[in-house]
Amino acid sequence: MNLLENINDPADVRKLARTQLTPLAHEVRNYLLDSVSKTGGHLSSNLGTVELTVALHYVFNTPHDRIVWDVGHQTYTHKILTGRRNQMHTLRQLDGISGFPRRVESEYDTFGTAHSSTSISAALGMAQAAKIKGEHRHAIAVIGDGSMTAGMAFEALNNAGVQDDVNLLVILNDNDMSISPPVGALNRYLARLMSGQFYAAAKNVGKQVLPGPVLELAKRFEEHAKGMVVPATMFEEFGFNYIGPIDGHDLESLIPTLENIKKLKGPQFLHVVTKKGQGYKLAEAEPVLYHGTPKFNPAEGIKPAPAGKITYTEVFGNWLCDMAKADKRLVGITPAMREGSGMVRFEQEYPDRYFDVGIAEQHSVTFGAGLACEGLKPVVAIYSTFLQRGYDQLIHDVALQNLDVTFALDRAGLVGADGATHAGNYDLAFMRCIPNMVVMAASDENECRQMLTTGYHYEGPAAIRYPRGAGIGAAIEPALNSIEIGKGEIKRKGEKIAILAFGSMVAPSVAAGAQLGATVANMRFVKPLDVELVKQLAAEHDYFVTVEEGCIMGGAGSAVAEALAAEGIIKPVLMLGLPDKFIDHGDPAKLLASVGLDAGGIAASIKARFLDADGNGEPRLVVNNG
Amino acid sequence: MNLLENINDPADVRKLARTQLTPLAHEVRNYLLDSVSKTGGHLSSNLGTVELTVALHYVFNTPHDRIVWDVGHQTYTHKILTGRRNQMHTLRQLDGISGFPRRVESEYDTFGTAHSSTSISAALGMAQAAKIKGEHRHAIAVIGDGSMTAGMAFEALNNAGVQDDVNLLVILNDNDMSISPPVGALNRYLARLMSGQFYAAAKNVGKQVLPGPVLELAKRFEEHAKGMVVPATMFEEFGFNYIGPIDGHDLESLIPTLENIKKLKGPQFLHVVTKKGQGYKLAEAEPVLYHGTPKFNPAEGIKPAPAGKITYTEVFGNWLCDMAKADKRLVGITPAMREGSGMVRFEQEYPDRYFDVGIAEQHSVTFGAGLACEGLKPVVAIYSTFLQRGYDQLIHDVALQNLDVTFALDRAGLVGADGATHAGNYDLAFMRCIPNMVVMAASDENECRQMLTTGYHYEGPAAIRYPRGAGIGAAIEPALNSIEIGKGEIKRKGEKIAILAFGSMVAPSVAAGAQLGATVANMRFVKPLDVELVKQLAAEHDYFVTVEEGCIMGGAGSAVAEALAAEGIIKPVLMLGLPDKFIDHGDPAKLLASVGLDAGGIAASIKARFLDADGNGEPRLVVNNG
Repeated sequence: MNLLENINDPADVRKLARTQLTPLAHEVRNYLLDSVSKTGGHLSSNLGTVELTVALHYVFNTPHDRIVWDVGHQTYTHKILTGRRNQMHTLRQLDGISGFPRRVESEYDTFGTAHSSTSISAALGMAQAAKIKGEHRHAIAVIGDGSMTAGMAFEALNNAGVQDDVNLLVILNDNDMSISPPVGALNRYLARLMSGQFYAAAKNVGKQVLPGPVLELAKRFEEHAKGMVVPATMFEEFGFNYIGPIDGHDLESLIPTLENIKKLKGPQFLHVVTKKGQGYKLAEAEPVLYHGTPKFNPAEGIKPAPAGKITYTEVFGNWLCDMAKADKRLVGITPAMREGSGMVRFEQEYPDRYFDVGIAEQHSVTFGAGLACEGLKPVVAIYSTFLQRGYDQLIHDVALQNLDVTFALDRAGLVGADGATHAGNYDLAFMRCIPNMVVMAASDENECRQMLTTGYHYEGPAAIRYPRGAGIGAAIEPALNSIEIGKGEIKRKGEKIAILAFGSMVAPSVAAGAQLGATVANMRFVKPLDVELVKQLAAEHDYFVTVEEGCIMGGAGSAVAEALAAEGIIKPVLMLGLPDKFIDHGDPAKLLASVGLDAGGIAASIKARFLDADGNGEPRLVVNNG
Repeated sequence: MNLLENINDPADVRKLARTQLTPLAHEVRNYLLDSVSKTGGHLSSNLGTVELTVALHYVFNTPHDRIVWDVGHQTYTHKILTGRRNQMHTLRQLDGISGFPRRVESEYDTFGTAHSSTSISAALGMAQAAKIKGEHRHAIAVIGDGSMTAGMAFEALNNAGVQDDVNLLVILNDNDMSISPPVGALNRYLARLMSGQFYAAAKNVGKQVLPGPVLELAKRFEEHAKGMVVPATMFEEFGFNYIGPIDGHDLESLIPTLENIKKLKGPQFLHVVTKKGQGYKLAEAEPVLYHGTPKFNPAEGIKPAPAGKITYTEVFGNWLCDMAKADKRLVGITPAMREGSGMVRFEQEYPDRYFDVGIAEQHSVTFGAGLACEGLKPVVAIYSTFLQRGYDQLIHDVALQNLDVTFALDRAGLVGADGATHAGNYDLAFMRCIPNMVVMAASDENECRQMLTTGYHYEGPAAIRYPRGAGIGAAIEPALNSIEIGKGEIKRKGEKIAILAFGSMVAPSVAAGAQLGATVANMRFVKPLDVELVKQLAAEHDYFVTVEEGCIMGGAGSAVAEALAAEGIIKPVLMLGLPDKFIDHGDPAKLLASVGLDAGGIAASIKARFLDADGNGEPRLVVNNG
């Protein structure tokens, strides 16, 4: 019997008998494994939420009731049950469905998520809106224990719990695992709740501390005192009605509990315990390995990838260990991205100088500032997109005090399959406006290592950005060499046209420059910009082209335009970079080509703007005095 | 006897007998009141922390032991005791001492603060550094109950409590009042702790629920069970040793407690209860009024200021009420800045649509996004500098989903007495790089109202920035009129030079333009920029000048440069704005003049760049082809 093939929306789920739900969940899990192993994607988290998703759509009246999925990488079952089963083969691919919920993709995706810990704020907004509009609907936030460590979730809890009159349900999906192992007091607290010791301690206190004869009395005492001395959970202190923990894979537990909760008023908190990778032994055993998977054969599991080019992440990880060996003052900080940021070996080799602060970007930056005040040299490894979470701390705590903190910004520029939510497109614009900052963009692996060393030795705030994945395959010098701050380099000499390229765009610009006979400079520093090089290039060329893998607005090209203006140099400038729109998921090379940021695209843009249609090097209309 | 005049640093405090400390505190309080009433500044918070500050410097070995003052507006006693007593008359003035702790000002100022909730992160960094370096010192964070509601403080607590081996002391200065009344579950919880009911409930449980005869047994039971059923405070759940609450004005309570804590290892949490305005009856009665004071006569108290020009804050507050009346969908959100953002009347008139979320900027933005998903029209009123805290939420939750949230950005540009920490200098740069955003800068009060209406009606994310204080005194039309999106206006017609002015710089630019016979445009929109107007101005003028009260790097001027480049127009451009440095506190008009952003400075810069030395209008060297 195939139940799943008849499920085209959650109303179909709700037509099933309760007894059919466990078989349905079984089918979904098989479908998931089959599908993700063919496309790649998030696996462990999705295997862990099959029953919870089935139960939510069964009990609640979606989409009238709103489900907000925190982080959203656990929504594949949700997608399968909400009419997107047959699109799962396009997952995370260009023009395919997203790996995250998106409002534009489905009415069941009530809120786009990807960065963690937004769900309670958004669901509270929806619940308040229902109240204001007099509508009867439930708003449900499903949030993992890792996401709970972010301050934003706390801010939302602090607000939600006191709003007695909203129909908000927060479901804590407690699987004891964010991408990196969870850290901090909250996790320790949840472990206590989960193990049941918390409740056992309260309920069995009579048995444990009282002699036999008074046990009966103690029981009476216990009963009377209930609700007074039974320790309230932290969530009750926040004003929620706390229910749980319950088994998140047991539909016979989930469904009655959710049905009861549905009848209650005010903020509810359901603590559900699930297992990442549930139902697929290999993922259960190694949930981190199966967190985000390539394509693989489910019968065999993920095979070690053949050794390919070293990634920038590995370049950073190796540099971190080498520099830590050379300088005892180095400390490494990650907001819950040990694997993603390449810090596994650093943790093993320097555990006392390794700090995984959990999903806590704000704290990661200011914690680094505190360390720097005492003469240590913190390196904060953070994805470009997540530094947006620590932006005020970068300005107010680090840069304003000119503290010596080095930022290693991974995943700068387009990130591919994760799409617009994770794009590191804005860092050049949002960092270069901050006084005291040094901002570098690495053009190859060796330069990345040199820039990290340079930023590290610079006694102030410095950021080195580098893209996701592998670079051009440059040979990496083992020495810890610096480069001169604020100095770019000429990569090829040509004439008429000077291409000023930044970071990952240096290589395609060199190729484009070769086609066009243009000069190409690797600018290296977005701040301080190499103004002398700009002046020299201006003196020797007729046209300027800037190229960056970042937003044009406010980015590196606009830094060049500012320098020209400040020097009183007028020169036609073509600024190439990411256009002013959010760019969806897809293969990174194809995405870059689609916005003209491959060698061919760069050359074509330059030709169209500055050269004759036949590309013979004679200037077309290049000067427009308005 | 005058103790204070012999206190030149905390070592002098430590030489005093314990019995002298209460008289010293009395002297400090008088000094404070006298001093602040002459300079203006923060009063209530400083009167509330006199004894705590005396006690900390008495018990701990400052500056070897580190005190980090959260927010830092309560550090006047600290300044008085650390060698800056005689500089208090220069407080918050140009070249005078800051109203906040600053590392460059004193070795006792271990960490610069001003934005809230950074202290635990910073102090934890210092404590960890001491551990790594093998140094024996204490790191102390002093944080108010308002600051505790920010997620960042939670992130830090979550990390700190599990680090058993660091000498960290968190002092919660619980005065039940941030600038706006505190909100949320944490505050309610603290009130319970403070009132003692929490402990009473546990300790007296026997008496309350058991009949007389079994009371003795119950006592035995209670004793046995102690530590098991007595509810742990939330801070103990976080791994801290919780002590308190104690009276923060009683040195006989503070000093022995701190001396005991000093001997304990691991993370300590001391809950101190203080009263804002303590010792000055008028401030005790109206702590919000005396939070930040002008100059006043202490015998008479603060007098109502004579009615002056309406401030931009009032323009916003009035607009908000008017628009709320016109449109039921409007909801107003403030992160703990009811008074500062001008929302007192709105709260009174529309309590069901008013949300003070506490110091929780991240949540404020995403909560707004959630409301917008349901068709309501949230207006988030937030200082420019505090939007830095909600930057990721602006990008990831609002702009990416193109949600209809309006941002009213008060305190854009230089803010005066609060200095660099509060400067709203970066918003144009960090907002205009975000796709889907509409970004406006108001040039006068009436335009501010029109822009608020425009942004409100725009069905997507829009931000309106306006400066602190009053504008030029423009007459305000009562109607709720919009302006056309992306359209600027010519303010005066001239020749040769086109001044493209933004927001607060329109008025001085018009004056400068009149001096120089230049054309002046009020560009109104930083995004979308009025490219047609740029082209028209380029066609009719030889030189471009852009003027903005914001960082030049990545700002509005660079938007103009990008537009010129995109259009293939080459034109000499002079970009005027805030230089690439942090600008200290001082009188706003003087500060603007110091960076050449008054009419005279603008005219002088234009002359120096584009006109002959004698200002006769003949071009000097204007074109430099490199």
